[in-house]
Amino acid sequence: MRSITLVCAAAFVLTGGIVFAQSWQPPPDNQRCPTKWGKDDQRGAANLAGPETVLRAARLIRSGEVIELGHVLSSTMPLSAGRRFELETKRTTMSPQSNRRGSNEELVVAEIGQVGTQFDGFAHQTVGNSLYNCFKVDEVSTRTGFTKLGIQNVGALVTRGVMLDIAALKNVDMLADGYEITSQDLQQALAKQNVTLQSGDAVIIHTGFGKLWDKDNARYAKGNPGIGVAAGEWLARQSPILVGADTPPVEVNPNPDPQISLPIHQMMLAINGIHLLENLKLDELAAKRVYEFAFIIEPLKLQGATGSTVAPIAIR
Amino acid sequence: MRSITLVCAAAFVLTGGIVFAQSWQPPPDNQRCPTKWGKDDQRGAANLAGPETVLRAARLIRSGEVIELGHVLSSTMPLSAGRRFELETKRTTMSPQSNRRGSNEELVVAEIGQVGTQFDGFAHQTVGNSLYNCFKVDEVSTRTGFTKLGIQNVGALVTRGVMLDIAALKNVDMLADGYEITSQDLQQALAKQNVTLQSGDAVIIHTGFGKLWDKDNARYAKGNPGIGVAAGEWLARQSPILVGADTPPVEVNPNPDPQISLPIHQMMLAINGIHLLENLKLDELAAKRVYEFAFIIEPLKLQGATGSTVAPIAIR
Amino acid sequence: MRSITLVCAAAFVLTGGIVFAQSWQPPPDNQRCPTKWGKDDQRGAANLAGPETVLRAARLIRSGEVIELGHVLSSTMPLSAGRRFELETKRTTMSPQSNRRGSNEELVVAEIGQVGTQFDGFAHQTVGNSLYNCFKVDEVSTRTGFTKLGIQNVGALVTRGVMLDIAALKNVDMLADGYEITSQDLQQALAKQNVTLQSGDAVIIHTGFGKLWDKDNARYAKGNPGIGVAAGEWLARQSPILVGADTPPVEVNPNPDPQISLPIHQMMLAINGIHLLENLKLDELAAKRVYEFAFIIEPLKLQGATGSTVAPIAIR
Amino acid sequence: MRSITLVCAAAFVLTGGIVFAQSWQPPPDNQRCPTKWGKDDQRGAANLAGPETVLRAARLIRSGEVIELGHVLSSTMPLSAGRRFELETKRTTMSPQSNRRGSNEELVVAEIGQVGTQFDGFAHQTVGNSLYNCFKVDEVSTRTGFTKLGIQNVGALVTRGVMLDIAALKNVDMLADGYEITSQDLQQALAKQNVTLQSGDAVIIHTGFGKLWDKDNARYAKGNPGIGVAAGEWLARQSPILVGADTPPVEVNPNPDPQISLPIHQMMLAINGIHLLENLKLDELAAKRVYEFAFIIEPLKLQGATGSTVAPIAIR
Repeated sequence: MRSITLVCAAAFVLTGGIVFAQSWQPPPDNQRCPTKWGKDDQRGAANLAGPETVLRAARLIRSGEVIELGHVLSSTMPLSAGRRFELETKRTTMSPQSNRRGSNEELVVAEIGQVGTQFDGFAHQTVGNSLYNCFKVDEVSTRTGFTKLGIQNVGALVTRGVMLDIAALKNVDMLADGYEITSQDLQQALAKQNVTLQSGDAVIIHTGFGKLWDKDNARYAKGNPGIGVAAGEWLARQSPILVGADTPPVEVNPNPDPQISLPIHQMMLAINGIHLLENLKLDELAAKRVYEFAFIIEPLKLQGATGSTVAPIAIR
Repeated sequence: MRSITLVCAAAFVLTGGIVFAQSWQPPPDNQRCPTKWGKDDQRGAANLAGPETVLRAARLIRSGEVIELGHVLSSTMPLSAGRRFELETKRTTMSPQSNRRGSNEELVVAEIGQVGTQFDGFAHQTVGNSLYNCFKVDEVSTRTGFTKLGIQNVGALVTRGVMLDIAALKNVDMLADGYEITSQDLQQALAKQNVTLQSGDAVIIHTGFGKLWDKDNARYAKGNPGIGVAAGEWLARQSPILVGADTPPVEVNPNPDPQISLPIHQMMLAINGIHLLENLKLDELAAKRVYEFAFIIEPLKLQGATGSTVAPIAIR
Repeated sequence: MRSITLVCAAAFVLTGGIVFAQSWQPPPDNQRCPTKWGKDDQRGAANLAGPETVLRAARLIRSGEVIELGHVLSSTMPLSAGRRFELETKRTTMSPQSNRRGSNEELVVAEIGQVGTQFDGFAHQTVGNSLYNCFKVDEVSTRTGFTKLGIQNVGALVTRGVMLDIAALKNVDMLADGYEITSQDLQQALAKQNVTLQSGDAVIIHTGFGKLWDKDNARYAKGNPGIGVAAGEWLARQSPILVGADTPPVEVNPNPDPQISLPIHQMMLAINGIHLLENLKLDELAAKRVYEFAFIIEPLKLQGATGSTVAPIAIR
Repeated sequence: MRSITLVCAAAFVLTGGIVFAQSWQPPPDNQRCPTKWGKDDQRGAANLAGPETVLRAARLIRSGEVIELGHVLSSTMPLSAGRRFELETKRTTMSPQSNRRGSNEELVVAEIGQVGTQFDGFAHQTVGNSLYNCFKVDEVSTRTGFTKLGIQNVGALVTRGVMLDIAALKNVDMLADGYEITSQDLQQALAKQNVTLQSGDAVIIHTGFGKLWDKDNARYAKGNPGIGVAAGEWLARQSPILVGADTPPVEVNPNPDPQISLPIHQMMLAINGIHLLENLKLDELAAKRVYEFAFIIEPLKLQGATGSTVAPIAIR
């Protein structure tokens, strides 16, 4: 990861003639593909999940306390532009038999893979026409889903979760709207919390921004604190399965460098095959200072979809 | 449960003048409400879930093997009448910035609470106008969900799962379409498998019928083997949190008694507050003869909804 | 109509003991059903449409000028609470043949019968459980439409249209938000415009409020001028096929009498079988002072639906 | 049109070295754009509609008889692959006021521009990346509609309709499934019916295939009789505003030449700017032998959409 990025930055400087210290560009396809998991791989860092991560997680279950990390999916929750969540209760149908059984259900119209607390799959983000492992959008996308990288390939993930409380590190309830979390912040939080990351972890970042959920949706959606390029690169090198936060995009938004749009999305999903987990509800975890826990997430098996709304849990 | 039902059956015989040995009627509201969990309770048997069930489950995690129990949600999967599952990939939007970030997502139109492998909540089924704990449909239903008993109240459930392999007990790959599983079948399977049920378990019944999923949808949807009234009453007395199976309704369908429509739905959801878990994918669990396991399910927190499509797992 | 209403008002005064001069109550079912069109009738005043109204309309076509009366259906248009209009362009599919034929289409999710310029059918409004001609909601409604009174029964209507410009009568661009148009207003406008109404006409009322469409949606949706009970009763006695206006509900909203909710909706649709036509675009018609014209409307034949979005025209 | 096509065919023969007499290719962009209506034109042949066509139509209204040409939109109607029509009745909401006003409406989920009797706009079909007047798909398409050529630009069309009864010409109830209607057929029908086409007409072709609608949907959708390339070219030269038929694609399907896919779609919509009108209900018109009539169609003003379901009428 590091060497590729350095090469790109250098190339950018040489060609462009102007030095932008923060500038980041995704590496060209031939430098990032095939990934280390092989040319046909669709799982990325989820390949790290397995019996070993499950047992690592299970060992952290001591009290049996379950802490919910997902928000309620409601018509008043914040939504990214162009997305919706509509739920229509259907009329009760009454069976004609003697037991008078009435049946209720509801129609939901939503970008169900990309609303609420949501787990991003690899079909979600591209570098130009190119997805994770350089699958090409125009070859694998259909009107009804992606033929490669669909979220149904992921399966449940059971692993150790580590929560890095950056708000607590900075002694604030909530990081400032555009604050860029640095790799130093991440490392200081780990040191303060006396935890080290391991390959295959689920890394969860607490910014405190989740307090705005369903309270001040306009501010929640407008911009947020989060990791920037440098912290993202440091994190990617720790080989987590996923990176999550209590904000819409996990990463700082907008990026301090106006020339790039949500670079961590590309870096994690398209380049490194690391999942993102957005809009987490982290208030309870933070209040209880639970830094290590069994983390369990069960993405819906939506065939060919780019992501899944989820209701993950921490157990300690 | 038993005494109430006997009273009802007697009343039925006396009034009607005709004896139907199998006939079952839901008890009147004043005999079933408030439930043992109190008049305001919305959780039913999920009240049994807690640190104790979590630890009971965790102790069963030995090898770290995760077995998926949810089917893929696809446009070709079987659907109950009047339900749909539509997934439309939206056009890729390309960010104007230099990192050429393309974004994909999809619109899903579905009775998302009641398709695929699905977890039934208590707003799903009624006895006349009356739901679990005698909440009234016309008081708690709105166009956009139920104000009581919504699926968002349930939360993740982590408990011991017990799989009863009735197909194996009968030495068949698949039980016959209309076979009514009896309480004797259940008890024999437990004995053969050397397992006993505990309060708070997730009880999973393997019929083999799930082999038809996405293979012979017409037959899968037309009718299926499953527990009948007597087995249901026996099971309810064991106080499980949920009862699941590899069929659309968990219970035998159609019921051998043509006068009643899906009585187990009323018995479990409306009367006893026990969740149902339908359309499970049990082939792997059965093939590996995994009878006890950590069972983990994370229903979506759909506000006011009657159920949730899910992707539960077994871990051993 | 008149006698029934008087009886009701009297009854109300006697029973209630308090006199509300404006109070209006729908007549009881046995006083309004069967309607004059017979007990099985589903068409109401649309029975008046026929060759005679078509020829009456055709005689008004002199210059061949077509004036559009429908607004554009867009994502930014005003919508009544709980309704939506979503349009999603689907990905282009390219045929594999040599002529490189690409095909585009879009998915629309909308209460398509009740958005935009919209034509109300008789399944739309009830008096308690009772619809037009006393069809009962619980007998004729299903999850997928009404078995009686569906909008597909109406068919195209071709008749004389008469526009009553009440804004012009009052020398204003737009009537005040809560202005109740009286029957005197209607009659004065007719006199000023030198027109008389005929049975079977389409009566269109210009309030000027349509100027707010897609400009000030909040105000447009909040309340509006329109006919009140007395004007509605006078109009109903003129036997129009439909009454339309450039406002969301045609009638004054909220009604000056806070005890009643949209009484003209009940009066026209449920009691008299007269259609309503809402959210008309009348600026051009008013600017050109076109008071008489051929009016043509083609409601969609949505089976079992309560209404239809439309794009009606005036021709002179 | 003719010279361009001849040039193309010749080029094809010379390059390919093999002669396919029927082969047709869309002309290259620089030979078809800008169209005769100018480089910014979005209306095509609808520019021919105006007071003159309205008066031509009005003169044909003699008896005042209205004949409906649109099918009912129902859940059982035939649909092209990948399209749906779902209508969900919403729960009745009851106003709290004294007049007990209940309100009903329904949610519709459909490719509403491309279901039922449907009117095709110019954003519907492409030649490669190029639409009518060579607007480029990748420049004018968004996730929520087309910024050019949207169906809202068309407006109501009032003109003379001419029905060519090819089934009657051939003395059959219904043309054979793959029958290619020739230009000779069209001209013989005109002669037999003693009608001549005029610029700006709506040309309606009766094949009898509409009898299968909602009766034998599988056959209706599988393939159908209709005009082929030669008849299409002859028709285009007559300058109609639209060409319609009682089949899904108006044209013969599949095309006898397997190398081309629905060429009339490209020829009419993309190249000549002539609208198509599909799935017409023509039984009454044919039975009554109404060959000339006032034709009126009011497409929905769906912003940015590719077409509109419609309920057009003939009046005589």
